[in-house]
Amino acid sequence: MEFIKSNPDGLKFYLNDSKFYFKSGESISQLVLAFEEYGHFNENKSNVILIHHALSTHSHVASHELNKNKGWWDNIVGKGKAIDTEKYYVICINNLGSCFGSSGPSVINPEENFLYGSDFPEVSFEDVVHSQKFLLDFLKIKKLYAIVGPSLGGMISLQFSILYPDFVERLLSISSSARTTPANNANRAIQREIIKLDPNWKNGKYIQNPLKGLKAARKLGILTYRSVEEFNERFDAESSANISGEEKDSVTKVESYLEYNAAKFAKGFDTNSYLTILRMMDIYDVRSELTKLKAHTLIISVDTDRLFPHEQQREIYTELEKLGKPVRYIIHESKFGHDTFLIETDTIGNYIKEFLEKRIDNE
Amino acid sequence: MEFIKSNPDGLKFYLNDSKFYFKSGESISQLVLAFEEYGHFNENKSNVILIHHALSTHSHVASHELNKNKGWWDNIVGKGKAIDTEKYYVICINNLGSCFGSSGPSVINPEENFLYGSDFPEVSFEDVVHSQKFLLDFLKIKKLYAIVGPSLGGMISLQFSILYPDFVERLLSISSSARTTPANNANRAIQREIIKLDPNWKNGKYIQNPLKGLKAARKLGILTYRSVEEFNERFDAESSANISGEEKDSVTKVESYLEYNAAKFAKGFDTNSYLTILRMMDIYDVRSELTKLKAHTLIISVDTDRLFPHEQQREIYTELEKLGKPVRYIIHESKFGHDTFLIETDTIGNYIKEFLEKRIDNE
Repeated sequence: MEFIKSNPDGLKFYLNDSKFYFKSGESISQLVLAFEEYGHFNENKSNVILIHHALSTHSHVASHELNKNKGWWDNIVGKGKAIDTEKYYVICINNLGSCFGSSGPSVINPEENFLYGSDFPEVSFEDVVHSQKFLLDFLKIKKLYAIVGPSLGGMISLQFSILYPDFVERLLSISSSARTTPANNANRAIQREIIKLDPNWKNGKYIQNPLKGLKAARKLGILTYRSVEEFNERFDAESSANISGEEKDSVTKVESYLEYNAAKFAKGFDTNSYLTILRMMDIYDVRSELTKLKAHTLIISVDTDRLFPHEQQREIYTELEKLGKPVRYIIHESKFGHDTFLIETDTIGNYIKEFLEKRIDNE
Repeated sequence: MEFIKSNPDGLKFYLNDSKFYFKSGESISQLVLAFEEYGHFNENKSNVILIHHALSTHSHVASHELNKNKGWWDNIVGKGKAIDTEKYYVICINNLGSCFGSSGPSVINPEENFLYGSDFPEVSFEDVVHSQKFLLDFLKIKKLYAIVGPSLGGMISLQFSILYPDFVERLLSISSSARTTPANNANRAIQREIIKLDPNWKNGKYIQNPLKGLKAARKLGILTYRSVEEFNERFDAESSANISGEEKDSVTKVESYLEYNAAKFAKGFDTNSYLTILRMMDIYDVRSELTKLKAHTLIISVDTDRLFPHEQQREIYTELEKLGKPVRYIIHESKFGHDTFLIETDTIGNYIKEFLEKRIDNE
């Protein structure tokens, strides 16, 4: 049985009582996906845009009638905005394995009447995509006008367009990647190790979220979200005149910045979910499958991105270009590094708008 | 009372029983410095080269008669090598605050008959330099032919040349920096936090070195010692053909690499010493004091250095040049990032040799 129920704040839940099988062979007895909708279907449902969210965010892309809280892309999604909800029906689904309403380690296993916790199956990008396809089918969506994903979201978008090439007309990958790299793996390996140092971790069977470990791990992630230049500029200004040996304001300032942002994240994020998603990224590499792609594609990269360097993103473009696929590539200059898509929303919005409005001709 | 005693393996100890005062105002009742010597003084002791070691190393720069173990710069220091011990008297002193024989948290406080531990005073670069000057004076060295320092060693060399400008004829700073940056501070702040997560840490009053924490912290350091390119090249080779979802060999390989190197480091390094040195680096900024420098200076940077980016090193050059100081700058191209000075010892050795042999004319 599949059905949808709605919360008063506009958060919807898709429930499917058939067993959901993961790529690993494991299964869960019920699939739940939390999602939010913006705008309306047109007559033949040909105006659907699927947005994939990043690691730390959720389905609340933008504020709406039932939930006025700011979304993570408020400046980009809405009436008259780059992704215009007067024109498009927009849907964003909390990723399988995450912790904002969808099936994942932090929800209750109906068979055990207890949280899945670290027993939740290993999640792959394919699993995330397949779970979303169930929901889209249930909504009788036959084709996506566009699929848009920043960061981890872009990796899901790419995986989606590879698994369902005829389902996706336009693909927009922002500050994303077609593969994990050893440098990324190293960073994540250390994050895992840090979390496991927290005495509250208890081998994943924690009662209290191991906040200290999660926070310290997250800080390591945060280091890669901004450029060195931006970091130095922001925290160095007042200290540059100081003489060696004096306590630097910048040390304290940097520590406060990391603490504030990591604490904000850790307060709302389940550690087992975090580890599930890190693991998923560890085993991601779709380079050899790009040949399946049919969508018109735009790759947007940022020159100072430390997490997914622009060279890696150019690889996707070069590969698609070589395969004769319709693809464009933008390298955007900004000091804000990987986080640019959350900050320079005007410029990023313009790229998106232009891409969405471009007519696609059959070659 | 000051005196020198020697171990059978050629490790010497300088002991000074006068109180040693730190910049912080604190003091220790006895200063001990471990050091090693290579080559011999010439008649007027005008052939002295002082080498400053990096964070994780020690006075054993190269193997010698009494200690055949490989040193950290075996290919550079020795008979007929770039720093030719037939020609020069070479001395390397274990940094104050470190843990290879010199006064630091891991030695016994003679007043308490117990390890200093976290009660050891805060150490500044000035303190390291002043402590070394005591020893050099005791050895009746009137001037250094050259001072050579890679990485943290270069920071000490620079600080030395600023505090004793008339004492230093040539300064060679390799992959080093004239200031700490907020990006560096952030990395170190997280390392500190990681160490404190280890239950063995016990607020610095540990009986057993908190190995797990120290190892995890060190891995974060290691991330900055090599370039992303080198990392990706080394660990990615076999995995590039894999298809999404398959267990990647590279994940395991990266983890083993980090584990091996961090474990090797942590086995020999005291955690309180490590924190003392990180703290010292936090408060380092000699940019405003470069005006005092008199030495002929060579700055060698590596284009892929993630710890001390070459732009930062060019700053030292530009500033000295502006001040009319005799200075040269080399940007060396290598994929080995910050660690290049330990790997491409042939090329680095050539730069050093050429610099040491150049006649200095009075301008």
